[in-house]
Amino acid sequence: MLGAGVDIGGSYIKAGLVEIQSGRIIDQCSVPFPRGQRAEVVWDRTANCVTELVDRQRLMMNDLVSVGVALPGTLNPEKTQVIHAYNLDFHNTEVRRPLEERFPGIPLSLLNDGDAATLAEHRFGVLKGTRTAVLLTLGTGVGGGLILNGQLFGGGLGNGVEIGHMTLRYDAGKHVCGNPGCVEMYCSASSLVSGLEGVSPREVIEGIRNEDPAMFGILERYTDALSSALVSIVNLLDPEVIALGGGVSNAGEPLLEATSRKLREKSFFTAEYRIVQASMGNEAGMVGAAIAHQCL
Amino acid sequence: MLGAGVDIGGSYIKAGLVEIQSGRIIDQCSVPFPRGQRAEVVWDRTANCVTELVDRQRLMMNDLVSVGVALPGTLNPEKTQVIHAYNLDFHNTEVRRPLEERFPGIPLSLLNDGDAATLAEHRFGVLKGTRTAVLLTLGTGVGGGLILNGQLFGGGLGNGVEIGHMTLRYDAGKHVCGNPGCVEMYCSASSLVSGLEGVSPREVIEGIRNEDPAMFGILERYTDALSSALVSIVNLLDPEVIALGGGVSNAGEPLLEATSRKLREKSFFTAEYRIVQASMGNEAGMVGAAIAHQCL
Repeated sequence: MLGAGVDIGGSYIKAGLVEIQSGRIIDQCSVPFPRGQRAEVVWDRTANCVTELVDRQRLMMNDLVSVGVALPGTLNPEKTQVIHAYNLDFHNTEVRRPLEERFPGIPLSLLNDGDAATLAEHRFGVLKGTRTAVLLTLGTGVGGGLILNGQLFGGGLGNGVEIGHMTLRYDAGKHVCGNPGCVEMYCSASSLVSGLEGVSPREVIEGIRNEDPAMFGILERYTDALSSALVSIVNLLDPEVIALGGGVSNAGEPLLEATSRKLREKSFFTAEYRIVQASMGNEAGMVGAAIAHQCL
Repeated sequence: MLGAGVDIGGSYIKAGLVEIQSGRIIDQCSVPFPRGQRAEVVWDRTANCVTELVDRQRLMMNDLVSVGVALPGTLNPEKTQVIHAYNLDFHNTEVRRPLEERFPGIPLSLLNDGDAATLAEHRFGVLKGTRTAVLLTLGTGVGGGLILNGQLFGGGLGNGVEIGHMTLRYDAGKHVCGNPGCVEMYCSASSLVSGLEGVSPREVIEGIRNEDPAMFGILERYTDALSSALVSIVNLLDPEVIALGGGVSNAGEPLLEATSRKLREKSFFTAEYRIVQASMGNEAGMVGAAIAHQCL
């Protein structure tokens, strides 16, 4: 069984043909996100990407058991529109109708990209078998998803989960999300280099992974914030596993060690939760989107 | 059907005889909490309280379908010990065995007091019929409980839920719970009067309820913090209802209005959640403890 999983981001639209049972991506392609153009162009490129993959594998579109599309934003509870996807500049944008027109007769799932990654980690990755778990994606933005009762949690009112916009410093300045001092302000990739010049987040992440002593101060500052974000989740939900994904998580063991140590000092419970690096990498969104029809 | 519900607090041990179907308390009594004395004295007073109620109603102990005991602390996942109850100065204190000895043959439930109040509000009060909801108790401490999937959520690893120790200002000073800048530091009753002299929390709460202009600044400061605490819950769980209980909630409509207005500005979702005052008052703990055997 093959499904198509599409992960739409602010830089690229990525599509993969996914073996549903194994989560293996057998072919993939990507095209630039058409910034500043009409949404119809995005849907055309999405459809072209999937068509190209199907053609390359000498399949028919109807051989796909699903098409799933993950977006970096909030969908309405009916999953027909994107309410806000700031990186795409989508606001109250129709999604289901234009995609159904382009994939007629194929089960279509639309979901938040953090939720897609969480589904992938829960089915095939480090959250496998958990009943209460969290994925936090630390990238340009901070997102993620929640497993409750052994299933992806889509929000009590169906609005979803916005882990990156929990509070970290309530008396800080405004943030685009409306919540002053939200987690994203202190835990995004760019916050790694805030106040620094001539160094990129990628260099810092590399430096932390290689235990470069010059990065020690940055790691301390970043994990002070990240551990305080995680303690809110631990004290509220007492999860079994917390997985860290996104670009920052490539800092690896030094990041996990410092975060874990500080979290244990701060958390209320002498808990047995585990903090781990997400295992599905950049493919998580595509894989999760492809299997979403079985999970949502 | 009658059950006994006991609510043990740092000042009083309160016991009620509760009609399980209606949640009505038909008789109650309270005795001072024996501060500084051995835990055995607490269990004796608890048993005496319940015995007195049973005697007064000309019942036998075996007429009770349950005894539930709510405590202001964290229990171990097996619900045999209190790990920490700072207000009672209980740490790794045996609870189940001494209480089973005093109530032989009667189903015994032990639970956190915020969880007990949440059960009562979910069965009989403002959280009735909800699948995803939160009770926040704003008193000497800040506690509460969580309804997920239509049931009381006891934590993913069984450690419980500590809403009052989520993060509000991560770079603040230490707190006894281990989490610097936790919600309790800014949202407890005493934080209402921090920096003020000659005024009690009770007077401030009364003043806010009566819309005394002199209390406007305090209300502003307090609801700045409280709304930021709630936005973490809204953005993570997207609940249907948020109920405010505890002494501070007696400030009533002015508190609800200011909190609700600020929360809507800060929350990610244009959500339809409701913020309401808890309806079970001081009896919530007793009622929830008495019905806990049906719910846990």
